[in-house]
Amino acid sequence: MTADYRILEPGDIPGYLRERGMFDGNPFADSDIEVHEVSDGNLNRVFIATPRDGRSLAVKQALPWVRVAGPSWPMSPTRATAEARAYRRVAAVAPETIPVVHDYDAENYALTMENLSDLRVLRTVLNEGGGFGGASTAVGIFVARLAFATSDFGMSSAERKALIAESVNPELCKITEDLILAEPYVGHEHNHWHESVADLAAAYRDDRELRTEIADLRHTFMAGAQSLVHGDLHTGSIMTGDRDGTEVVRIFDPEFSFVGPVGFDLGLYWGNVIVAETRARILDGPADHTHEIARTWQAFESEFRALWPTRLDTFFDDAYLDRFLTRVWTDALGYAGAEIIRRIVGFAHLSDLDSLPDPGPATRRALLIGRELVIHRADLPDPRAVRKLIDQY
Amino acid sequence: MTADYRILEPGDIPGYLRERGMFDGNPFADSDIEVHEVSDGNLNRVFIATPRDGRSLAVKQALPWVRVAGPSWPMSPTRATAEARAYRRVAAVAPETIPVVHDYDAENYALTMENLSDLRVLRTVLNEGGGFGGASTAVGIFVARLAFATSDFGMSSAERKALIAESVNPELCKITEDLILAEPYVGHEHNHWHESVADLAAAYRDDRELRTEIADLRHTFMAGAQSLVHGDLHTGSIMTGDRDGTEVVRIFDPEFSFVGPVGFDLGLYWGNVIVAETRARILDGPADHTHEIARTWQAFESEFRALWPTRLDTFFDDAYLDRFLTRVWTDALGYAGAEIIRRIVGFAHLSDLDSLPDPGPATRRALLIGRELVIHRADLPDPRAVRKLIDQY
Repeated sequence: MTADYRILEPGDIPGYLRERGMFDGNPFADSDIEVHEVSDGNLNRVFIATPRDGRSLAVKQALPWVRVAGPSWPMSPTRATAEARAYRRVAAVAPETIPVVHDYDAENYALTMENLSDLRVLRTVLNEGGGFGGASTAVGIFVARLAFATSDFGMSSAERKALIAESVNPELCKITEDLILAEPYVGHEHNHWHESVADLAAAYRDDRELRTEIADLRHTFMAGAQSLVHGDLHTGSIMTGDRDGTEVVRIFDPEFSFVGPVGFDLGLYWGNVIVAETRARILDGPADHTHEIARTWQAFESEFRALWPTRLDTFFDDAYLDRFLTRVWTDALGYAGAEIIRRIVGFAHLSDLDSLPDPGPATRRALLIGRELVIHRADLPDPRAVRKLIDQY
Repeated sequence: MTADYRILEPGDIPGYLRERGMFDGNPFADSDIEVHEVSDGNLNRVFIATPRDGRSLAVKQALPWVRVAGPSWPMSPTRATAEARAYRRVAAVAPETIPVVHDYDAENYALTMENLSDLRVLRTVLNEGGGFGGASTAVGIFVARLAFATSDFGMSSAERKALIAESVNPELCKITEDLILAEPYVGHEHNHWHESVADLAAAYRDDRELRTEIADLRHTFMAGAQSLVHGDLHTGSIMTGDRDGTEVVRIFDPEFSFVGPVGFDLGLYWGNVIVAETRARILDGPADHTHEIARTWQAFESEFRALWPTRLDTFFDDAYLDRFLTRVWTDALGYAGAEIIRRIVGFAHLSDLDSLPDPGPATRRALLIGRELVIHRADLPDPRAVRKLIDQY
């Protein structure tokens, strides 16, 4: 397999950025621009270009295959279009929560963006004993504003239909449908687990109650076209840091974006919060992650309620808003549980657990909590109830 | 406004059918073909072409406006594409429930189909005291097979995403969102009602409980992308009759088709069943419509369950099927209630009630039942419970 568009190499980047008009009025020579590749996700290539005395930029290009696998695992580069679309929508309503996007080159599936190299991946910060800072609040605001703006509340009926049509993302949705919402519950060659939870891994595969609830969450993921979602909002998709004394949080990599259930993003994030919390608790370190779910929900709910009076479709009344938010909450808990489980007995695991001296106890605890969240999601009315559940383990 | 495609007039039909290859091997002269216009829906034109000693055909063309209003009310003719798409999907799984479609001319938004002039509109048959015959069974089978084939159970994940994208139907969905799922509950110039229910019309506009439930059904209609639906499946969209001693039922006019909640078609049909039943009961005539809801549901459920073992996505388990069918049932009752209400206090009314010597009692009865169905849909577990509710009025 070969690409039928231009695959960028480090040496191409200065010329490419000039072509895209990035250095207008500031005509650096190629030799004035230092380029290095920092690709560390599974799918794409990322270059950082730093002009002498100029603003550095990141160029992210989607290859027509999975980067870490090569051409033998083809994947449509249109995921970059999904990513650009999501960034554009968020930029209109919550620009402070994402990187600045300077350019999207649809022909070559390349985004030119703010360089985030001065920030650190939230998961790494947490693994080193750091705290969430304002990340949970940023996630709540990000999800509320993106969800509202792209829901039937915030958009006209006709625009919504166009959004649904243009945002289908078959290949990346299929990854989620398989890796998160099916494989961990059946025998699959992708699955693996720490030996200490082999019993639970086997029990979950035979767990009919769990299977039915996951089937329900799976169908909601497939057919619940509520709003544009990020689609992969875990603690590895968030950068945090400090710029001139101000805390900065940037949510990135929304290439799994599509029109789906609002609760999915909150749930994925919370699954990762709970794993981080479990790690911190086992290590008995200084970090206290106890309130992150409440913080996220509080930011999400208050933001969504603040936007509600601006809805275009005023047929939806306040009582329906309450009902809708309850469903989002319940869905989110289910996806949180599914995320925890798949990160322990599925294909892709988490450094939060794997890097522990003895991953056993934390892994077991998180896995048990994951099931409880899926099964009892409708019986947990608020963050306090979730807190209580988690504290039992 | 003018059309930028060819608007067919009766005199064009013989030549048009020849162009479309309909008389291949049987070269009728224009003068051998009798054409007459039978347009009686609100939106489109329909011609019947009958060759001397040949098979007669129907040509249905969508105009770029609403036929009965003219160019001052523009409407995209792409509704004909939605109609052709739905027919194609049903033809693959339940061909006996729809007219034979010989040709779709996407350039001119024209369908050439089986002539159904020998059959009669079910609503007319019912209004004259006739029975449903096999219509409810046909509806159950039609909905089950179309729903299964175009759901995440019967289709691959990637094909489903393509179907969702290609099937968005903004203009016609907006009509439903407004006329069925909003206007009757707010003051709107479209609304009118029989003087005998003026009190209920006013009460329903102030009914907060009803408003919230309709908001919920509205959001499910907008965001519940379960399967391709007919979208306008009332008793005026069904032809029945007898051909060579065999009963024939044809469901037609699926131009409102889109990927929405499975329960919507069943609900629209049941709303019309209940109105017909109310008419028959008031007239104390020979027709007994008591079991039509049970008949439809029985046909739908047994057909859907029969298809279940053939599902492509075997992650969905039998327990999830039960849950899914319960939700379809509950949604359907809600849409049935909404259909009854909008047909009495909304824009478009029904001859079933309007043609009664005194429409008052039947109209009131149906309107009261409509509200009960919406409000208590989750408390009515089966057709027997609905039967009991209806019998109370």
